Amino acid sequence: MRAVDIIRRKRDGTELSRDEIEFLIHGATRDSIPDYQMAAFLMAVLWRGLTHAELAALTEAMLRSGEVLDLSNLRGVKVDKHSTGGVGDKTSLVIAPVVAAAGANVPLGRKPVFVPMISGRGLGHTGGTLDKLESIPGFNVNLSLGEFRNVLEKCNCALIGQTPEIAPADKKLYALRDVTATVESPYLICASIMSKKMAEGIDALVLDVKTGDGAFMKKQSDAEYLAQLMVETGTRMGKKVVALITDMEQPLGRKVGNALEVDECLDVLHGAGPPDLRELCDELSARMFVLAGRTSSVAEGRALAAEMIASGRARDTFREVIRAQGGDPAVVDDPGRLPRARNLAKVRAPRGGFVTAVRCEQVGVASMMLGGGREKKEDAIDPAVGLVLERKVGESVETGATLCTVHYNSDARLSEVTELLSRSFEIGDAAPQAAPLVRKVIGDA
Amino acid sequence: MRAVDIIRRKRDGTELSRDEIEFLIHGATRDSIPDYQMAAFLMAVLWRGLTHAELAALTEAMLRSGEVLDLSNLRGVKVDKHSTGGVGDKTSLVIAPVVAAAGANVPLGRKPVFVPMISGRGLGHTGGTLDKLESIPGFNVNLSLGEFRNVLEKCNCALIGQTPEIAPADKKLYALRDVTATVESPYLICASIMSKKMAEGIDALVLDVKTGDGAFMKKQSDAEYLAQLMVETGTRMGKKVVALITDMEQPLGRKVGNALEVDECLDVLHGAGPPDLRELCDELSARMFVLAGRTSSVAEGRALAAEMIASGRARDTFREVIRAQGGDPAVVDDPGRLPRARNLAKVRAPRGGFVTAVRCEQVGVASMMLGGGREKKEDAIDPAVGLVLERKVGESVETGATLCTVHYNSDARLSEVTELLSRSFEIGDAAPQAAPLVRKVIGDA
Repeated sequence: MRAVDIIRRKRDGTELSRDEIEFLIHGATRDSIPDYQMAAFLMAVLWRGLTHAELAALTEAMLRSGEVLDLSNLRGVKVDKHSTGGVGDKTSLVIAPVVAAAGANVPLGRKPVFVPMISGRGLGHTGGTLDKLESIPGFNVNLSLGEFRNVLEKCNCALIGQTPEIAPADKKLYALRDVTATVESPYLICASIMSKKMAEGIDALVLDVKTGDGAFMKKQSDAEYLAQLMVETGTRMGKKVVALITDMEQPLGRKVGNALEVDECLDVLHGAGPPDLRELCDELSARMFVLAGRTSSVAEGRALAAEMIASGRARDTFREVIRAQGGDPAVVDDPGRLPRARNLAKVRAPRGGFVTAVRCEQVGVASMMLGGGREKKEDAIDPAVGLVLERKVGESVETGATLCTVHYNSDARLSEVTELLSRSFEIGDAAPQAAPLVRKVIGDA
Repeated sequence: MRAVDIIRRKRDGTELSRDEIEFLIHGATRDSIPDYQMAAFLMAVLWRGLTHAELAALTEAMLRSGEVLDLSNLRGVKVDKHSTGGVGDKTSLVIAPVVAAAGANVPLGRKPVFVPMISGRGLGHTGGTLDKLESIPGFNVNLSLGEFRNVLEKCNCALIGQTPEIAPADKKLYALRDVTATVESPYLICASIMSKKMAEGIDALVLDVKTGDGAFMKKQSDAEYLAQLMVETGTRMGKKVVALITDMEQPLGRKVGNALEVDECLDVLHGAGPPDLRELCDELSARMFVLAGRTSSVAEGRALAAEMIASGRARDTFREVIRAQGGDPAVVDDPGRLPRARNLAKVRAPRGGFVTAVRCEQVGVASMMLGGGREKKEDAIDPAVGLVLERKVGESVETGATLCTVHYNSDARLSEVTELLSRSFEIGDAAPQAAPLVRKVIGDA
């Protein structure tokens, strides 16, 4: 078998066999197939797409390029949630303790539930769960797989970053896609996400596929296409998978920035917090409960999520997880212990009226420019900085009122940031019609 | 400027600027842009194609990646011929001395003509001019550019191989295309051929674009498309260019194999040889005469070519060139001095009738399997081996008569070769209609 022949076949739109795809991924992982051949293959895939069978073979080959966690010693159902990324998208920090809390206390006839969550870092205008977690003093996301297993067993959830053992082919291909303009293929996105998630040894997965200005998939049809691919691929691999297409036209919640987002999640865990964030956390938790067999319906799942918050059990679990992963558990009840920026600046409304749009990607870029995100992978981030949206879409505002508060440490790019933020708010004479947060559900749940 | 953005733009079908293309080619030549980015770019070009402006920019950037021969000290017109490659395609060895002979002896009011021919080696089922020349004992195709210039000045033609100074970007890209399934793009083929040819410092170029079973372009429409691209690109660069679309449904002439093909060219230079080979040599020489202003019409050009052969002047020039390049000039009058294979085998007709087709690519592969060509670039070749078609399309044959004589040194793959050759001849009850050798002319000449 020769790589060049496989590239040629894909280039010509011929369906590749499972053996051919395995040959490529195996070779790429072991460097026996050079990067330039993989780059040509990736561009051919971006052009021609993949059939369902090819996509399943690619995902499985990438999954098997490394270790697949065997969590069979944990008696119960393993379920995770993955989001395609957005601005202010912080649901993992609420969902993991909520689902774990309910997963540890199960009525007769139901199985325990575990949430083995392996997350990524933020890049560009989108934030990453790991960066948010690391704003909690002492929190260690770099556990070994053994330590991960221990935390999971103890707390019913654990939150760590990618390890070198998991899907090394994805690590390699992702780096190559990034520099060869082949990131955008829904097939390659699907294989990348699903190979990593399936390596967690999970039984079920809820996908939060974002769409809108602040999302990777600006068009809902693209988001639906990707969601469909992921649900089909996961199902083919014997997992229960459901995808929610959710709105990312404006940031989720009011806070953007690492410590600020942890703070907002703690609000939610204390029964407060912004309604859109609470709604999405409840909805995603409910879907996880249903897939895990913890509740029989989504409505029951929502009620269970609310109960975990109202009872304080989710907070208890979060405290435990933070302690188990080396962090300061006191932050849960005293968010003042989180890093805070030294300075505040205000972005004010140039006119009165109703906010009709908040340009979501620009808000994400503004947070990145403050130091809250990375332009390049190797950039360091400042956990304290970010911004708080004092007005969201549909809310009224008077001339000169604050639209947004900027939390900053360096004023090097401050005027650029405030100017960008001020351009991010659109104000009109009437409130726009409210748009649903969950636009569509794909898969059975 | 970043390579990834240029790749993305090409991927999305956006026209690239001259600066962007120069940035890529400059970077590829100096290794500041890695192979994997060039591989992705090449696949994107194969997918999206290039506009005329992009193609001209690419060709010029590749041309300027190395040295461009300055032949301005040679007072006269510099003209070359390039063939896209075929089986038994040996016209260069006739044309170069024919045009040079007439180019050295010019009537009043006409300019001298020079043929600075830089050729390639054979690969796969197609032969290469350099390999054929090297079957002449002592012939050196590896002249420095200074030596090349001297032979050209002395003989009005010189025949050498690629030098490292000429179009290094093409050398690099060609190697990459070969392993990334991006060879077939007509745009990349055009840029590769034209950048090298334009680097010869020529004023005019006749292109022999082969089509049919033994050609790279099996379909005439593909050959025409490529020819059109090359004529337009050359014309944009201020050169006179004409392309002939010629038949490669069966091998050209009767002999295939390096020394055997030199032998057949000597037959033609002695006024004999197979009619199809003579016709194509005359036609291509005539087009070169017209482009160089040596004759006013193609018909006059054909007559001049015939005169150069009949008068023995082309032979004289060939002797001189061989001597100047270190070869044994006595082969011209004594082809017995060429290497000969030790053994002959016959492929016989299984039935009587008329030859209706000779599967050209298979014949090329058979010659390669005997050792006359290369499967891989690094393979050594045997100059003596090859085959002689005793029957060509349209000729009658009796049961058991010889269709083809195989000249071989090793019988390792002999049965495979004779079996392949025997399957290469189709015999029917009637002679097919004769097909024209020159199917179309593209460009003004």
